[in-house]
Amino acid sequence: MEHIKVSRALHIILDSVTMMGSELVTLEQSLGRVLNERILSNRDLPPYDVSAMDGFAVNSGDLATIPVNLQIVEDIRAGDMPSVVLRNGQCARIMTGAPLPLGADAVIRVEDSKQVSANTVQIVVTAKSGQDVRAKGENMHSSEVVLTAGTEITPGVVGILATVKAKHIKVYRHPRVAILSTGNEIEAIDEPVDPNKIPDANTYALMAQVQALGIQPVLLGIAHDDPLELEQYLLRGLEHDVLLVSGGTSVGAYDFVRPTIEKLNVSMKFWRVAMKPGHPLAFGVLHRTISQADAQPLDAFVFGLPGNPVSSMVCFEEFVAPALRRMMGNMRLHRRTITARLAHPLKIHPRRTEFIRVKLSRDETGYLATTTGTQSSGVLLSMAHADGLLVMPAEGSNLAAGAIVVIQLLDGTAFQNEMGFEE
Amino acid sequence: MEHIKVSRALHIILDSVTMMGSELVTLEQSLGRVLNERILSNRDLPPYDVSAMDGFAVNSGDLATIPVNLQIVEDIRAGDMPSVVLRNGQCARIMTGAPLPLGADAVIRVEDSKQVSANTVQIVVTAKSGQDVRAKGENMHSSEVVLTAGTEITPGVVGILATVKAKHIKVYRHPRVAILSTGNEIEAIDEPVDPNKIPDANTYALMAQVQALGIQPVLLGIAHDDPLELEQYLLRGLEHDVLLVSGGTSVGAYDFVRPTIEKLNVSMKFWRVAMKPGHPLAFGVLHRTISQADAQPLDAFVFGLPGNPVSSMVCFEEFVAPALRRMMGNMRLHRRTITARLAHPLKIHPRRTEFIRVKLSRDETGYLATTTGTQSSGVLLSMAHADGLLVMPAEGSNLAAGAIVVIQLLDGTAFQNEMGFEE
Repeated sequence: MEHIKVSRALHIILDSVTMMGSELVTLEQSLGRVLNERILSNRDLPPYDVSAMDGFAVNSGDLATIPVNLQIVEDIRAGDMPSVVLRNGQCARIMTGAPLPLGADAVIRVEDSKQVSANTVQIVVTAKSGQDVRAKGENMHSSEVVLTAGTEITPGVVGILATVKAKHIKVYRHPRVAILSTGNEIEAIDEPVDPNKIPDANTYALMAQVQALGIQPVLLGIAHDDPLELEQYLLRGLEHDVLLVSGGTSVGAYDFVRPTIEKLNVSMKFWRVAMKPGHPLAFGVLHRTISQADAQPLDAFVFGLPGNPVSSMVCFEEFVAPALRRMMGNMRLHRRTITARLAHPLKIHPRRTEFIRVKLSRDETGYLATTTGTQSSGVLLSMAHADGLLVMPAEGSNLAAGAIVVIQLLDGTAFQNEMGFEE
Repeated sequence: MEHIKVSRALHIILDSVTMMGSELVTLEQSLGRVLNERILSNRDLPPYDVSAMDGFAVNSGDLATIPVNLQIVEDIRAGDMPSVVLRNGQCARIMTGAPLPLGADAVIRVEDSKQVSANTVQIVVTAKSGQDVRAKGENMHSSEVVLTAGTEITPGVVGILATVKAKHIKVYRHPRVAILSTGNEIEAIDEPVDPNKIPDANTYALMAQVQALGIQPVLLGIAHDDPLELEQYLLRGLEHDVLLVSGGTSVGAYDFVRPTIEKLNVSMKFWRVAMKPGHPLAFGVLHRTISQADAQPLDAFVFGLPGNPVSSMVCFEEFVAPALRRMMGNMRLHRRTITARLAHPLKIHPRRTEFIRVKLSRDETGYLATTTGTQSSGVLLSMAHADGLLVMPAEGSNLAAGAIVVIQLLDGTAFQNEMGFEE
């Protein structure tokens, strides 16, 4: 059976999946979603020149010779409008965000002034015109496009949406994802321990990987190695946008997934990928023709993932997650990568791409990558302890300690113990 | 007024905050939480030596001379137990995950065999003892500690929890966080546009930053510059574990937050930090003595954040987020950092640490950092477009283009357009 390359498999998947339709969410629900509309500014911000500091609004021309005493003619706080036009020798006490009075072109910080009397201040520095002034429209101009469709909604974007009072936002709909485990040997979480069985880790590890993308998946349970039972489960799964089936896709004689899935008119694009861990990886599309009122995409996408939890998690990372991100409108599909030095030599296995679980540490020269020890795909603990996946290309050669390698950063590793800089 | 250093401010905050008590969550709710108990394995996994491949269980001694024909005496699939002991010249067809029969010590892949007749297979490769066998207990040994308290629950950890059937998990409780905006100039999201006012971005940007940590905050709204109104809002806020107040903490004459907060017995640790953006940053502790049945920590922590949205977001990143992570039991408190080359020169402002918003691009030599343009703290768009914060230490000197700098990676940038490796 043909093993296709990792890059080819990913290409086929990303070419096949379609972006979801849109739905409205509230600002409170919008974090992590992707905009499916452009957002216009509804005002000039700031609406006029405002002070960037607490201090004194001055005419910079008055400060040619310093120190200089200025008469305080007004107090302007944020939310107030100035009532007086400054003349030579005059200034206004002004708060951060308050509008500059006419006649003023700069702000002197409180720290650079000395109160001389109740209505006189001594300024001890000079100022350039515009200094510590935020110009009208600096933040945004009225009717300008401030956010484009396809923007992922980060906290900064939420701030902008609040600024323009976008209380309901059109975003890409989330795909409905169903998860199915298969195999007589799989023991459900509610069943008592049977030493002849394997606990169902896949359902929950995949659930968490889907949840990490912001999607709440549907857990279908465990289908036994019985064609009719499996067909019923697969039919339920195919009612969703994406179906993840783990187990049952290898060449073993007792695998029913392949014939059953093909019987259900799923057009399979490939069955095996030249990678470790995880080579039994299948992908197929169910083209549906029943039209729906909401014009949502109608195809269903099926991923056949390895039965082994580590392999299944790695395949999810490399193939399913980019596909789900594309369906949700994300433009960034892949894990951020960093370069690191290898702490030890590594042997290449020819003809397949390897994804090696590594831990990262940091010294003054950058990151050091150390494998989590055994790379047996049976050891799920290695996945839990990994900071990243080291990608060993199929065409590479053995690597010596100290070699520069590329690491995909995994979830849960956005943070570190060190501040990352010295003070 | 004293400006303390960034590192000193962070030290004071992290020394003051206390870790929350614990609560039980279901496995489905556990992603992102931190374990507050150790987790023991409930079985040996695998429960016996099992096949790592689909193939033939053999005695490696039989393969001294190859090719060799072996008699297939049994089919063993995952979930079955072997019924026959292999003798010389015999093998068993075996599926991935199925137990090895007695007499076998290795597995030959289907690909390395040729079916000769219904019950005879030709093996064309030799094998080492243990080859493609996963040893009993390789994944976990019964009663061994598989996860320690303090472990963040990533998808891999969820897989392990499912493996040991931990359906309810003791995790650190989330702090209750309240958010308050202050200032007469602040316009609520439900109010009509008034050009003399500033829309309330802070409440929602902070909300999203808190949500990004998995916490659903309480939005208190906007308190006007009136001591009695402010006091009522602050009292409500202090009923939570953490209160974030934005605006009103500068030295301006119209700031009521400081006197009001001190009147409420909040012990303020500092008011200003030598940093840009964001130097009006305050932190205080309300020591409470009323004991509670659930023995939760009783202190409330107050952060006074700048009124400016960019400054407020940067201060949240640098001070509030690490504090919340510590309260939730996280051991990793700070953003992951990477090194990058500067795309252009940068000028240092002495005596304060600067956090400069940058975009990152990648070439074959690593990351290149470019500022988002204006670093005016009025421009919230720059925060929305930033991939990271470049940290310029207070004691540094001006940097030339090409200089190596440290970048804290921000949220929403875990992904990139490129796979990060070539195939």
